[in-house]
Amino acid sequence: MKAEILNIGDEILLGQIANTNAMFISRSLVKAGVVLRWITVVGDSKEEILQSLKTAFRRADVVIITGGLGPTHDDVTKYAVSEYFGSPIVFNPELYGKLIKRFEERGLKMPEVSRNQAEVPAKARILPNPLGTAPGLHFEESGKHCFVLPGVPAEMRRIVEDSIVPFFLKHTGGARSCLRYKTLRTTGIFESRLMEMLGDVREIEQFAKLAFLPHTAGVDLRLTVMSRSHEDCRQRLERAEALVRNKVNRYIFGEDDDTLEERVAALLFKQKRTIAAAESCTGGLLSHKLTNVPGSSNYFLGSVIAYSNEVKMNVLGVSSQTLEQFGAVSESTAKEMAEGVRNRLGADFGLSTTGIAGPGGGTPEKPVGLVYIGFSDGTAIAAKKFIFTNDRLANKERSSAAALDYLRRHLLKII
Amino acid sequence: MKAEILNIGDEILLGQIANTNAMFISRSLVKAGVVLRWITVVGDSKEEILQSLKTAFRRADVVIITGGLGPTHDDVTKYAVSEYFGSPIVFNPELYGKLIKRFEERGLKMPEVSRNQAEVPAKARILPNPLGTAPGLHFEESGKHCFVLPGVPAEMRRIVEDSIVPFFLKHTGGARSCLRYKTLRTTGIFESRLMEMLGDVREIEQFAKLAFLPHTAGVDLRLTVMSRSHEDCRQRLERAEALVRNKVNRYIFGEDDDTLEERVAALLFKQKRTIAAAESCTGGLLSHKLTNVPGSSNYFLGSVIAYSNEVKMNVLGVSSQTLEQFGAVSESTAKEMAEGVRNRLGADFGLSTTGIAGPGGGTPEKPVGLVYIGFSDGTAIAAKKFIFTNDRLANKERSSAAALDYLRRHLLKII
Repeated sequence: MKAEILNIGDEILLGQIANTNAMFISRSLVKAGVVLRWITVVGDSKEEILQSLKTAFRRADVVIITGGLGPTHDDVTKYAVSEYFGSPIVFNPELYGKLIKRFEERGLKMPEVSRNQAEVPAKARILPNPLGTAPGLHFEESGKHCFVLPGVPAEMRRIVEDSIVPFFLKHTGGARSCLRYKTLRTTGIFESRLMEMLGDVREIEQFAKLAFLPHTAGVDLRLTVMSRSHEDCRQRLERAEALVRNKVNRYIFGEDDDTLEERVAALLFKQKRTIAAAESCTGGLLSHKLTNVPGSSNYFLGSVIAYSNEVKMNVLGVSSQTLEQFGAVSESTAKEMAEGVRNRLGADFGLSTTGIAGPGGGTPEKPVGLVYIGFSDGTAIAAKKFIFTNDRLANKERSSAAALDYLRRHLLKII
Repeated sequence: MKAEILNIGDEILLGQIANTNAMFISRSLVKAGVVLRWITVVGDSKEEILQSLKTAFRRADVVIITGGLGPTHDDVTKYAVSEYFGSPIVFNPELYGKLIKRFEERGLKMPEVSRNQAEVPAKARILPNPLGTAPGLHFEESGKHCFVLPGVPAEMRRIVEDSIVPFFLKHTGGARSCLRYKTLRTTGIFESRLMEMLGDVREIEQFAKLAFLPHTAGVDLRLTVMSRSHEDCRQRLERAEALVRNKVNRYIFGEDDDTLEERVAALLFKQKRTIAAAESCTGGLLSHKLTNVPGSSNYFLGSVIAYSNEVKMNVLGVSSQTLEQFGAVSESTAKEMAEGVRNRLGADFGLSTTGIAGPGGGTPEKPVGLVYIGFSDGTAIAAKKFIFTNDRLANKERSSAAALDYLRRHLLKII
């Protein structure tokens, strides 16, 4: 089955947003065993959409459309597909009921303009959209499939995961030729150093293609295998992974879509320990990451964001002498912050960050990018020094990742 | 002149990279006064590229191709355009000289595989590529233009800036038609309600095209104007903007690339006031946003992330009676948290969030998505109730935006 993605949106053509929807759908289709052959982007015009649909169905068996499903006048996708499939738009009482309920649950009256979200082409099967008002649509004609999805990324993603991937997994009974990849996620090591440690990559590439994908706070190692049989795919991936892990395992915190915070959360949860954070240079990002994990209230008690020295002293109990003698950005302050927040909030562990995020505030002795990460379990109190870059947001990202990784290593006792 | 971008690359179809090249070219074309109408992505296959070129030239006057120009076996773009334009590939001694020199300057011998980078279709004009070995190519036929660029982003960008944008600015006489857009950014209001408040959009669309772009925590209103003269463009945009602002100004926090936190930062800085936050359901995201703005230590003192009730009581001074009687997610708790953190950290203003982010923890009385935002300036202490969705990350985003907007309105006295 050959697939095409058709993204509708002037904002993509004007370069105002990157087409991340296409990227997400591409990945999902790989998982579902569907081969994506074309991505097309056109503007919010009914004529353009109709033309592109004709082109798409001349060559593809599956067309996935995103965008232009909202309630406003510039949303024309529904009318274009209705015309293409010769399927008049009808009022759907069930959708209308859900729509009313959706607004009621928020204590709001539904605006009149939203009523058209309950009007859909008669032939379409409805794909539920639990995060928004525009339902997804599925048309099937002469063995070809058309899926129509809202352009809001979270809503689109949810429908792809809930409805489209399962549909293809069932429909194709698993793909005939197999393309698989696996990503091993590392942090705390440079790309060039990783490459050096891996040695001659040809050994690995006997089994799987290896790609280095550097991010702000780590490097992903992607292994890709294409083969006729699932079993061969699986074996090749396994052997390539074993070779990689054999050399750089201590830097690998997870696989594929795993995040560092999820890994740390799982360890804390398993060890039944609690954590509190004292953040200076990360300004809340570390706590934000820790609380992104559902159920984080099981191990996360709270944090103190101590931007000013007064807060460091009055709330965390950092001594004025330490601040005077070593400064706010120092190993001693990081240690006192970690122990202070652990003690103040009654947690098993305290984790701290203090540094110069930039762009201003650097000196020759303490440049922008200098960061200390502190850790305390009440008896052992330690800190580690890092020097990152001169980019504020990247420094916040990297410091948060370094703190999470420091905690991970303490929990795994591989410090 | 209507343009199409044709991106070549299996890695885009597999979702391994986002198509940022298309985004860059889109923006450059806007500047050059060329209207982009289609973006197409196909894989590294000569047949596919030929087919897509035919489709593109049936509808567009300008086709810009990226990718597949490298020296390795999987780079086939050059052969496809050579065939399309009936222009045989010939050896170019001048390019060869530059290629040799390029390697010599790095103290390297040119690998044999790179020799083909000096072989180009005879009809093509060469577009210099100072950052790599694959030159850009320009074909002109019956008034239509085809540009072929390498896929490496830095190289592609350089050729677009050095050769393509200047070509169109010259060719079109400084853009005979002018395309301009402006985005008015709103928060705290639904798309459908915004549309209702704007009334008959035809009044606005006399002057500029209006698009609604909903995000997780707000809706952008984009006004686009295309006209023969720059002065007319400017005037139309101004009149359209005035009509929009006249109706929904209180929801507009900024323009184009402005963020809500930057707007709030500017207000705090101007009014020389300081802020501290007490976060529960946002878990650090609100502070993270506040500290993303360089220089935030001028107005941001710190925060307390109070996930557990003990932290709410012991650090923020929320009374146990309030927690027992009304619960942690309540108007009273939000107020006490805001006043508590203001008082504890010695700030002018206290801002608080408490809610049920989900996915668990909801009850019939207090469903997932229920959030209270609190504010205190020491005398006036207020809170506001919101009901968001059942998506954890979206709830954190929306609650943070709601808190920032609540603060913005207090600072502007438009509460």
